[in-house]
Amino acid sequence: MTERINRQWLLARRPVGMVSPADFEFKQETIPALTDGQYLVRNIYLSLDPTMRGWMEDRESYMPPVSLGEVMRCSAVGQVVESRNPAFAEGEFVSGLFGMQEYAVAGQGFTHGARIPDGTPLSWPLGVAGLTGMTAYFGLLELGKPVQGETVLVSGAAGATGSIAAQIAKLEGCRVIGIAGGPEKCSLLTDEYGLDGAIDYKTEDVEQRIKELCPRGVDVFFDNVGGKILEAALANLATGARIVLCGGISGYSDEVAQPGPRNLMNLVLQRGRMEGFIIIDYVARFPEAVKMLTEWVRAGKILHHEDIQEGIENAPETFLRLFRGQNIGKQLLKVGEATESRALSSNGPPAAR
Amino acid sequence: MTERINRQWLLARRPVGMVSPADFEFKQETIPALTDGQYLVRNIYLSLDPTMRGWMEDRESYMPPVSLGEVMRCSAVGQVVESRNPAFAEGEFVSGLFGMQEYAVAGQGFTHGARIPDGTPLSWPLGVAGLTGMTAYFGLLELGKPVQGETVLVSGAAGATGSIAAQIAKLEGCRVIGIAGGPEKCSLLTDEYGLDGAIDYKTEDVEQRIKELCPRGVDVFFDNVGGKILEAALANLATGARIVLCGGISGYSDEVAQPGPRNLMNLVLQRGRMEGFIIIDYVARFPEAVKMLTEWVRAGKILHHEDIQEGIENAPETFLRLFRGQNIGKQLLKVGEATESRALSSNGPPAAR
Repeated sequence: MTERINRQWLLARRPVGMVSPADFEFKQETIPALTDGQYLVRNIYLSLDPTMRGWMEDRESYMPPVSLGEVMRCSAVGQVVESRNPAFAEGEFVSGLFGMQEYAVAGQGFTHGARIPDGTPLSWPLGVAGLTGMTAYFGLLELGKPVQGETVLVSGAAGATGSIAAQIAKLEGCRVIGIAGGPEKCSLLTDEYGLDGAIDYKTEDVEQRIKELCPRGVDVFFDNVGGKILEAALANLATGARIVLCGGISGYSDEVAQPGPRNLMNLVLQRGRMEGFIIIDYVARFPEAVKMLTEWVRAGKILHHEDIQEGIENAPETFLRLFRGQNIGKQLLKVGEATESRALSSNGPPAAR
Repeated sequence: MTERINRQWLLARRPVGMVSPADFEFKQETIPALTDGQYLVRNIYLSLDPTMRGWMEDRESYMPPVSLGEVMRCSAVGQVVESRNPAFAEGEFVSGLFGMQEYAVAGQGFTHGARIPDGTPLSWPLGVAGLTGMTAYFGLLELGKPVQGETVLVSGAAGATGSIAAQIAKLEGCRVIGIAGGPEKCSLLTDEYGLDGAIDYKTEDVEQRIKELCPRGVDVFFDNVGGKILEAALANLATGARIVLCGGISGYSDEVAQPGPRNLMNLVLQRGRMEGFIIIDYVARFPEAVKMLTEWVRAGKILHHEDIQEGIENAPETFLRLFRGQNIGKQLLKVGEATESRALSSNGPPAAR
């Protein structure tokens, strides 16, 4: 083997408030020799997700925190370039928590990895048929339980999860209103995803616009944002409303936690339910979700956008796009090439192989 | 018939912030002659409940607001003293929304009334076997769904609803911690209701005490209070926790709604559920709840306290006791006597008739 150099981003310090590029440290290292059971992955796409902000904090959660000096944890897809693990042959494509780096030594624990089926574009297991798509699928269907004819409101509706949740709600026969930032994202919601209305939280009075666009109240609110957006939705609940708490990106960068909604008692008056979840609780049902999502995408029933930046050196800046609301759809970073022809990513149905 | 004088409290103005006696107007009127279908009730006990605060506001809710100049709405039990309704004979005991007054002309709408079964102490349909007891029953069992061995936290635990919810949770085999104000109430919780711990919110750090008393986290939180108490509970959720939002008396007297809990995202991290409800949605199942609650009380498995003040002239002040946290158990006001011997009220099993 020739000696390989790996370029990595380590967690350098725990962020206070908004994440800063200075929270990460760039490092080059020589990749150590593999031991039995390990395999080496050349990362192709890194997935940047809001939940990573939580992993940077020194707080036990559904996953342990990333340690200082450790490679920053993130999902990725890549190709096996060397293997001492019989389950993963050289040349195969895999997805896993391979981290913010060009190469990952995989094979155990968080970096165990999973083979990507032939014919699946490489980006899909990170987005529409990965954790973000499945978060939309289970969150909307299992917690939101939308019924045909009901009104579904989705925040972060141009994001990786919200955009899929909104389109699944349309497939379920609901009236769907999306909230996003800026005219470009709002046009995407109505013109491409076929939603029944869009609210631009940057320029519009969200509470008033929900009232106008959801005159019978909101039956299901799929929320990624929290804060003032959640308060505005609570002010417009239909009786028996379900609020799916998927995340709260509006608060992830607060140095001091902001106060919550003033109108929680509307849950009493409207007999509403607010429920949080984490996608890893549904791991046993992942195959079902992947199958459905893949079918919908291939059939053109669900569109998905990917925002693909390039170059491992840009990883922290690409991560920051999420908190600035700059991404449209799934935020990815391309950090390597495959050694064979393969559909890498797609917006919409994939090209034939 | 001799002419009867009725002493009443009308809603004089809509309260701003804390309710004031000046929000009510005292009035004496001659009771008009009954028309067909009506019957006249001599009120014996008035029920004072936090939810009445909401009825005083000019806001459509699960019931229309009380109009200015109208008799203040409240539940009551009384005796039929005159009847032009074949379903209600003179001498019978009835419960209904008979209002803050000595006599009610009943027979339709909100004052339709219901007969109180022979042998039931008159106060029970207002408390332990009435709306407050049933609120505890359905809220805890249907929304909280406590499982044997789980930890249940109850706020307002010395109040009419909380005290019943806490004891039902004990019957279900749970570890139960109650929150109440002051040493007298806290002793009641542990020494009489048999709870596993009590937290005095007036003198203790509630969040810290929950952490100490619920080391494995709170599985079910039955909340009547909201505000800071809710925030403290959210900080200590077990995975899969259920929060039953029954009310939020801490906020009912706010002139401006206070901010909500800063830590709602714990619902995501702990996959928690927060759900509001209103007891009238369970009206079809009231008989089941009344039967169970009555059996438990008669068997001495559930104790219930009644805080009985006297005199129609004291109705507003008695109502205010709720918001000052002065009541222990169900807040009642005795405003009249029955014309025959009847068990009026009881703490614990009733005397034999």
